[in-house]
Amino acid sequence: MRLTRSFIPTLKETPNEARIASHRLMLRAGLVRQTAAGIYAWLPAGLRVLRNIERIVREEQDAAGAQELLMPTIQAAELWKESGRYEDYGEEMLRIRDRHDRDMLYGPTNEEMITDLFRQSVKSYRELPQILYHIQWKFRDEVRPRFGVMRGREFLMKDAYSFDLDHAGAVQSYRKMMLAYMRTFQRLGLKAIPMEADTGPIGGDLSHEFIILAPTGESQVYYDAAFEEIDYVAGGAGGFNHDSAADLNRFFIEMTTHYAATDEKHDLAKWAAVADPRRREGRGIEVGHIFYFGTKYTKSMNAAVAGPDGKPVFPEMGSYGIGVSRLVGAVIEASHDEAGIIWPDSIAPFKAAILNLKVGDAACDGLCESLYGRLQGNALYDDRSDRAGVKFNDADLMGHPWQIIVGPRGAAAGKVELKRRATGERSELSLDDALAKLAG
Amino acid sequence: MRLTRSFIPTLKETPNEARIASHRLMLRAGLVRQTAAGIYAWLPAGLRVLRNIERIVREEQDAAGAQELLMPTIQAAELWKESGRYEDYGEEMLRIRDRHDRDMLYGPTNEEMITDLFRQSVKSYRELPQILYHIQWKFRDEVRPRFGVMRGREFLMKDAYSFDLDHAGAVQSYRKMMLAYMRTFQRLGLKAIPMEADTGPIGGDLSHEFIILAPTGESQVYYDAAFEEIDYVAGGAGGFNHDSAADLNRFFIEMTTHYAATDEKHDLAKWAAVADPRRREGRGIEVGHIFYFGTKYTKSMNAAVAGPDGKPVFPEMGSYGIGVSRLVGAVIEASHDEAGIIWPDSIAPFKAAILNLKVGDAACDGLCESLYGRLQGNALYDDRSDRAGVKFNDADLMGHPWQIIVGPRGAAAGKVELKRRATGERSELSLDDALAKLAG
Repeated sequence: MRLTRSFIPTLKETPNEARIASHRLMLRAGLVRQTAAGIYAWLPAGLRVLRNIERIVREEQDAAGAQELLMPTIQAAELWKESGRYEDYGEEMLRIRDRHDRDMLYGPTNEEMITDLFRQSVKSYRELPQILYHIQWKFRDEVRPRFGVMRGREFLMKDAYSFDLDHAGAVQSYRKMMLAYMRTFQRLGLKAIPMEADTGPIGGDLSHEFIILAPTGESQVYYDAAFEEIDYVAGGAGGFNHDSAADLNRFFIEMTTHYAATDEKHDLAKWAAVADPRRREGRGIEVGHIFYFGTKYTKSMNAAVAGPDGKPVFPEMGSYGIGVSRLVGAVIEASHDEAGIIWPDSIAPFKAAILNLKVGDAACDGLCESLYGRLQGNALYDDRSDRAGVKFNDADLMGHPWQIIVGPRGAAAGKVELKRRATGERSELSLDDALAKLAG
Repeated sequence: MRLTRSFIPTLKETPNEARIASHRLMLRAGLVRQTAAGIYAWLPAGLRVLRNIERIVREEQDAAGAQELLMPTIQAAELWKESGRYEDYGEEMLRIRDRHDRDMLYGPTNEEMITDLFRQSVKSYRELPQILYHIQWKFRDEVRPRFGVMRGREFLMKDAYSFDLDHAGAVQSYRKMMLAYMRTFQRLGLKAIPMEADTGPIGGDLSHEFIILAPTGESQVYYDAAFEEIDYVAGGAGGFNHDSAADLNRFFIEMTTHYAATDEKHDLAKWAAVADPRRREGRGIEVGHIFYFGTKYTKSMNAAVAGPDGKPVFPEMGSYGIGVSRLVGAVIEASHDEAGIIWPDSIAPFKAAILNLKVGDAACDGLCESLYGRLQGNALYDDRSDRAGVKFNDADLMGHPWQIIVGPRGAAAGKVELKRRATGERSELSLDDALAKLAG
């Protein structure tokens, strides 16, 4: 994309309303704009990041055997009356009355609707297990929306729901999703720690939340170094396979035996038992939450299937959420500096920025056009007639993993400067060598 | 996907509520389920089609130089009060009051919001032209939702908005979008006819709607054979390039000089002037609508930019809509038979179905697994222990472009039967030849 033709409105000033780094940087880098309290429009560069995160989340859900569908945003209140949650949910539920005076709502979550879809179609234990998910906008009418997309009202969430014949199967599904989550966060360049959690309004008796480490995180976390050492994405003997019960068991033991707690639940006696060099402290942000709640919804909504002996069985359910739009903010909290965002390669809106330091100079223009053509949509070309300093600042702010700096002296010799945003490392290279380094 | 493990609930019976072919077939083939009046959940196979259509729409928008962003579903009423449409819009607008008693609404369209985003960021004529689009769920509270996804309340729409410095630029953007639409419909396997239209509540003075031909369409259309003869996707001398003003001009002349009208506006005198062998009649469905409305919103919302002489100029706007979820129904109306759906190759949920006629037979199972592995997610494997007849019927119903039929006699000889859904043509082939034919 050429910057002069693109809708990426960067800001020089820090907007007053932004209190945290990710909110400030998302506004300044032109990723989002607020359109109402806690509601955001995703501008082209922001949308590219959101879609990249969505893609990784989707790939890991699919790899775990979950099937994607898409439920609507607007739901009928009747379903929630069946489960008993319509009255309980409180003011965070956006309640709507349609033109025929029917009670509707903007879905904050989908346990009821998925249970309804399930009971309409699945009639036999032979069709189990099923893990179904969707990536859809949700609405929670927060009393004080703040921190940008980190606590917005309209937000994008991946929510999955598992249906199993019995407890053992449900635990297996729960572990598969937990593994999918740890793989997802690793691929996003994040360090994640699963922590035992309360089940809250979803109900149930097994639950974990996923905290990612970020210096500006909302809560203090204490954890065993083990969580920084495990490679969830690796294959081979050290890796974990979704389809192997033994692997899932070994994985779950790893996730649950090492110490991890937020300050709310920090247990000094248990902490003292962690060997000193293995103790880690940091700040964290919650980005996912998974629940096993058994037959709570299948029973209340009468979603039985025929069991092996022909008698009706209520499937055991779990639900599994990741805040996709929240993750955009969380990644920035985990990866930025004074100058701006530092995007992990896997989700950057553009792999590289091409900075033309002298627009109008034939050698610079020619070299930049050639690079731009060869990078095919993976580069943002800063073709503005601005000073070099403006371009350097904006590229650092926007956080592209690589900057290709094209000045008149180097260009005359067929050379560019390649800068790695994360380390600040620079090197002077030929065009081909620079492109090779980017690709490698 | 293995059918025994997948959430594709086909129905033997035709649901009572479905009056038109696409609605019946979408329910029977397990593509969607209604969750409230005019609101649908997209099940895995349906979602695959929806995403395929979305992908083609997106590719053609991008090719025309439009930039994708994503505006939220919930909007503040204030913006609509500024443009004056809040009171005018009527009961189709889903009006919502949040917990702080602020007036909100579920966006039925986005002229106001895009104009607001534009005026916050674009300050100079040098940043024009801009074409911005998003693909987002909309809500129109139809008094009588019906015909499945063809007239639902929550529906997926691609809406684009152009901003130009002057009338000539705006006309150029309008023509680019018109060409993008004709290319999109052709790639979806549809015959589309653009027709001059009234501008309605969007306002403005130039407008076309796009009708696609389908035997079961809602209105009668009369048109010149020219529209069936033009190849919009082809490159070369006969093709049209978005970036060439001469091409766009030649294209627009083609689109506007040949006769085309629905029965409402049919003009017998003009029709008589069309050479007899070039007259075509058929039924049609509206799937897109484009508008040029000049400064209606930029003036009422004070979205001026600095012009070349430094004085404020109100940019000229157009808006361009395609009903993405409606297209799923429209494609089925255009392409089905007594037995079921006939998906065009470009948007089929699966390229092929593998029908194992004797599950448990070692040769059949082995051959099917090998095919399934080699087709990597592009095939739906019917691994159910059902009778052959059930599998044939379901494959015809679901409309996969190809069926690979694996029976015990053929399998023993390493042969499969390949059936083309559209023509019914069958041939007995080796595994490799069958795969080669699918790929070609």
